[in-house]
Amino acid sequence: MKKVYFDNAATTPLDPQVREAMLPYLGELFGNPSSLHDWGDMARQSVDDAREQVAGLIGAQAEEIIFTGSGTESNNFALKGLALAQQAKGKHIIISEIEHFSVLHSARTLEKWGFDVTLIPVDRYGVVDPQDVHKSIRKDTILVSIMHANGEVGTLEPIKEISRITLEHNIIFHTDAVATVGNIPVNVKELGVDALSLAGNQFYGPKGVGALWVRKGVRIIPLLDGGIQEGGRRAGTENVPAIVGLGKAAELAAGDIPAKMTKFAHLRDRLLRELPARIDRSVVTGHPQGRLPGNASFCIEFIEGESMLMMLNMKGVAVSSGSACTSKALKASHVLIAMGISHEVAQGSLLFTFGKDNTDEDIDYVLEVLPPIVDRLRQMSPLYSKFVKASKGGS
Amino acid sequence: MKKVYFDNAATTPLDPQVREAMLPYLGELFGNPSSLHDWGDMARQSVDDAREQVAGLIGAQAEEIIFTGSGTESNNFALKGLALAQQAKGKHIIISEIEHFSVLHSARTLEKWGFDVTLIPVDRYGVVDPQDVHKSIRKDTILVSIMHANGEVGTLEPIKEISRITLEHNIIFHTDAVATVGNIPVNVKELGVDALSLAGNQFYGPKGVGALWVRKGVRIIPLLDGGIQEGGRRAGTENVPAIVGLGKAAELAAGDIPAKMTKFAHLRDRLLRELPARIDRSVVTGHPQGRLPGNASFCIEFIEGESMLMMLNMKGVAVSSGSACTSKALKASHVLIAMGISHEVAQGSLLFTFGKDNTDEDIDYVLEVLPPIVDRLRQMSPLYSKFVKASKGGS
Repeated sequence: MKKVYFDNAATTPLDPQVREAMLPYLGELFGNPSSLHDWGDMARQSVDDAREQVAGLIGAQAEEIIFTGSGTESNNFALKGLALAQQAKGKHIIISEIEHFSVLHSARTLEKWGFDVTLIPVDRYGVVDPQDVHKSIRKDTILVSIMHANGEVGTLEPIKEISRITLEHNIIFHTDAVATVGNIPVNVKELGVDALSLAGNQFYGPKGVGALWVRKGVRIIPLLDGGIQEGGRRAGTENVPAIVGLGKAAELAAGDIPAKMTKFAHLRDRLLRELPARIDRSVVTGHPQGRLPGNASFCIEFIEGESMLMMLNMKGVAVSSGSACTSKALKASHVLIAMGISHEVAQGSLLFTFGKDNTDEDIDYVLEVLPPIVDRLRQMSPLYSKFVKASKGGS
Repeated sequence: MKKVYFDNAATTPLDPQVREAMLPYLGELFGNPSSLHDWGDMARQSVDDAREQVAGLIGAQAEEIIFTGSGTESNNFALKGLALAQQAKGKHIIISEIEHFSVLHSARTLEKWGFDVTLIPVDRYGVVDPQDVHKSIRKDTILVSIMHANGEVGTLEPIKEISRITLEHNIIFHTDAVATVGNIPVNVKELGVDALSLAGNQFYGPKGVGALWVRKGVRIIPLLDGGIQEGGRRAGTENVPAIVGLGKAAELAAGDIPAKMTKFAHLRDRLLRELPARIDRSVVTGHPQGRLPGNASFCIEFIEGESMLMMLNMKGVAVSSGSACTSKALKASHVLIAMGISHEVAQGSLLFTFGKDNTDEDIDYVLEVLPPIVDRLRQMSPLYSKFVKASKGGS
């Protein structure tokens, strides 16, 4: 059976070159970078090299990169660490309604710790209005965190416009760039932010590693207390093989981005155009233009997303109905709800995220197998029967 | 040149069988365990299997295991997560003076959050007196955290005796077992604790992965907020290759422990006996009997540990002068200071931690190369000259 992996937002595979780069560190080069001997020196040098590679990908300086264990840890670290470091100035934080749960739930934890959180709404395309950020700023606002792009609907956020506002008000601005780094050009100076999260498994790097970039001079309180690794900002023995892999993935991404963007945008645009043409009562979610090249997201009415996923899986197709981090929670996506989509329609969420191996034939295949699946599922849906009857009655 | 690695507490190498077990997950089996398709299912199954393997090693149930990114994260999670979960009952915490910095500094963070921390002293061998724990208990004591063994001096702590006390007072008891799990038999039921930290790179498993065991029914607040991974207790895409590696390492350790203990104890006892016989003014640190088989630690007077490490490294020998997590901080070890060793003497700390590849010839080699190094360094030491003069004057 044909196998098509359209779930690269959940995780990309490891690039074979990244794997090659990692292998020595799963063998002879096993030292702890903090150790004062040759084994340690070799590990330390590799971590330093990876730091340069990651910094290079986002236009940062190496010493501004803090390696973490995941995008989730980077976001927790940013929200909690920046808020705690700034709390003498105030306790008000601004985030958007469509942040990843690692940002949203960190903000909720901060509320328990006495912080006040304002959630900025988004429009029907999932876009934050910078003026809403502006209007929400108070004298005690110390931190704004708005994602660079939403991984579930692909929508890009106006980070530069928001950073002009935060800069003017001297407020720290963090962006969760897990969905963008390695996939589209990201430059921390151009964005004008103070802190930025990224994750290896979003661009052919390993799982179990992420990074938080924090602009030099910006204070942050550690999330993981202990040893003096990462300049005293993130304790724990460095995950050397994964860090080396993240560095290699960053180096490769720097070269691959333009070709990936062109290819993904082509696949995306085909799917955004052709899927709704083949399946009635299906709508594109997210911004029609201002979106990630690798993301095509839909809601298919009168369908429960999970059944659709399972039937597509039986045809060899891997997709998702939103963030993998919440897939088993089986709730309607908070992102779609924030965009004004009803709970019923949000249930039929279907997310395609592209990878380097995807081809036009993959798109052809899913366009062939999906419509009969939707038909079959709708035949079992009481809501759909009602709708059909009502439509006929009305005609 | 001969190469001898005596720094297994900093990190063990990866067992080739562990590496073999991990490789497929750096290749075809790259799925995200939260994804609802075959790629996800395979990853999820592997994580579940690893959970069984880790639980098996410590006599726990699989669902009580929470995978983390390191021993440091496990300790941060335990201290902060258990304290925050219990804070309605009280805000007093008891730890020992010789805990790893990930416990000590987490406790300091808790102090900033309004908790009160009592530090229990240790005797000259680094042993906590259970009666000191008993006497420190207050009505508002909610958490005790005492390590199972100290990685710097090898001393084993009387965990069973302490757990009788905490059980009687209905206080949650966490133990940092990073130095023991996989190296000596550890059974959570026998120890009588409520939570236990472990790390993969202490027993031939990978870096970047640890676990926290939390007894069923004990509440803990997440350290990493976000998705619903690990039963909602630790967010972030699972580091599947590392988790699989940790599982395999746990399985192998279960079989290897008796032979490792016999072998390591032999090497340790040779070194504990022969090194002081060859180097005057050198003392064994830690408990003479109640210590990890794989640990031989010393203080060599009139020597600065770092110079000794570097000269040993030039002879191909990797050792440490304490915890790798603090090696670059160049302060006297808080563990040795707590044991009543003076700052001057603690500077000459020298730690050998054994691995499966070490042999009697390695011990012979270090016993041959170390004394001349010590002699040379002492010749450069003004303190040693004074001491020699004083000794002669006194004779």
